[in-house]
Amino acid sequence: MFLGKVVGTVWATRKDEELVGMKLQIVKHIDLDYKLKDTFVVAVDSVQAGVGDVVLVTSGSSARQTALTKNRPVDAIIIAVVDKLDIVVKT
Amino acid sequence: MFLGKVVGTVWATRKDEELVGMKLQIVKHIDLDYKLKDTFVVAVDSVQAGVGDVVLVTSGSSARQTALTKNRPVDAIIIAVVDKLDIVVKT
Amino acid sequence: MFLGKVVGTVWATRKDEELVGMKLQIVKHIDLDYKLKDTFVVAVDSVQAGVGDVVLVTSGSSARQTALTKNRPVDAIIIAVVDKLDIVVKT
Amino acid sequence: MFLGKVVGTVWATRKDEELVGMKLQIVKHIDLDYKLKDTFVVAVDSVQAGVGDVVLVTSGSSARQTALTKNRPVDAIIIAVVDKLDIVVKT
Amino acid sequence: MFLGKVVGTVWATRKDEELVGMKLQIVKHIDLDYKLKDTFVVAVDSVQAGVGDVVLVTSGSSARQTALTKNRPVDAIIIAVVDKLDIVVKT
Repeated sequence: MFLGKVVGTVWATRKDEELVGMKLQIVKHIDLDYKLKDTFVVAVDSVQAGVGDVVLVTSGSSARQTALTKNRPVDAIIIAVVDKLDIVVKT
Repeated sequence: MFLGKVVGTVWATRKDEELVGMKLQIVKHIDLDYKLKDTFVVAVDSVQAGVGDVVLVTSGSSARQTALTKNRPVDAIIIAVVDKLDIVVKT
Repeated sequence: MFLGKVVGTVWATRKDEELVGMKLQIVKHIDLDYKLKDTFVVAVDSVQAGVGDVVLVTSGSSARQTALTKNRPVDAIIIAVVDKLDIVVKT
Repeated sequence: MFLGKVVGTVWATRKDEELVGMKLQIVKHIDLDYKLKDTFVVAVDSVQAGVGDVVLVTSGSSARQTALTKNRPVDAIIIAVVDKLDIVVKT
Repeated sequence: MFLGKVVGTVWATRKDEELVGMKLQIVKHIDLDYKLKDTFVVAVDSVQAGVGDVVLVTSGSSARQTALTKNRPVDAIIIAVVDKLDIVVKT
C-alpha cells in the first residue's frame, strides 16, 4: 500500500456503468514527512475520506477485494484514513 | 486509475482475435494542470472517448472487469471522460 | 498496452516446461516517433511478429488471456503488429 | 519480492473492515549493502517482523496468498525476516 | 519477462510457511549487453539456476503459474536460463 493525501476530486458524467455512484478522489503520494510529491493516482474510497486527509491506498487487483469494488474496473482504493505515522528507524 | 488525454489511435490489421473490433486509443499521461507528459499507454475504450478528451484509465487485471474486456488480453481501458478536476489542496 | 519494436530473440534450452515451444522476443519500448528507448521486455508472441516489427504488448495477468498463454508463467505477450500510429493531438 | 527494512508503523482507526487487526508496517527499500533508499511501502506482516528487521516483501495479488490476507484489500506483505544476504557476483 | 543475472541468495529462517524449501535468489537486472544494473529482485527458481547464470524472470500473478509456486505468496520466478541473446535490430 502507499501513503497519500486527498487533494481533490474527479468529476465525470460519462463513465463505465460499473463506476456509477463511486466518488473518485485524487490522491497525491506523500513521503514520511507528509510532504506532497508530484505524482498522484485517482482512487475510489471505502472509508469516506475527505479532502486533506492522509490516507492508505491499495492498488491493482487487491483494490477489488472490498464490497464496494468487487468485480469492478477499479485499480486503486482508499482503505484507511491515517491517524499517525510512527517512524522509529531514521537511517 | 490515472488521468490522461487521448492523442491518437493505433491501427493494426494483424492482431490477436480477442482484440478484433476494439478501438485502440493512445493516451498520454497528464498532470493536474492538464499538461501532457511524455509517457503514454495504449488503451481500449468502454465510453466512446474521442481524440482530445481527458480520460480516466484503469490498468492491469482491473481493466478486464467490463463487459467489453472480460477474459481478453487487455491491460488498460478508458473508463470515464473527465468533465472537471476539482483540486482543493495545493501544497 | 505499450508500443515496442522487436529487436531480437532469447535462446534458452533450460526452461520451465510451460514455456516449451514458445518464441521469446526481445521488445524495446518506443516513443510515438518510433524511436527506440533503452528499456525492453521479453515477450511471447501470439501474432507471429518478426524482428523489426512495431508491436503492441500486453503485460501482467492480461498476458495470460490468450489460447497460447492460458495458465502459463508469462507476463508479457505481443498481441498486435502495428500498421500505423495516427497522432492527432500534438500538445 | 523486494528487500526492505521495517522503519515504523501506520496508525489508522478508520479503515476498511477487512483490515481490522492487521499491523501496518512501513518498509523502506534497501540496496544489497542494506542501505535505506527513500522509497517505501506499507505492508501487512505474516511473520511478526519488528522495527529494524530486514525483510522480504511480496507485492500485488501474490500478497493475498496467505491465510492472513486471503481475499483482503492488501497489496504488500512481509513474508520473511532476512538473516543474511549472500552476494557472490559483484560485477 | 525481464532479463537478469543471479548474483546471490537470501537466507531467511523465519518465513511464511508457504515459502519453506524454496530457494530465494537475488537477481540483478541486466541490459542487452549483459551489463548489470543497480536494481534487483528476489525470485524463486523453477529451473535450478546457479549464481552467475543469466536468467529470464516472470513477475506478478504469472509467477504463480508453475507447479512450484501455485497459490503461494511469490511475485517473481526464474523460468529459464538464457543461452544467448540474438540482437538483430540495433537502432
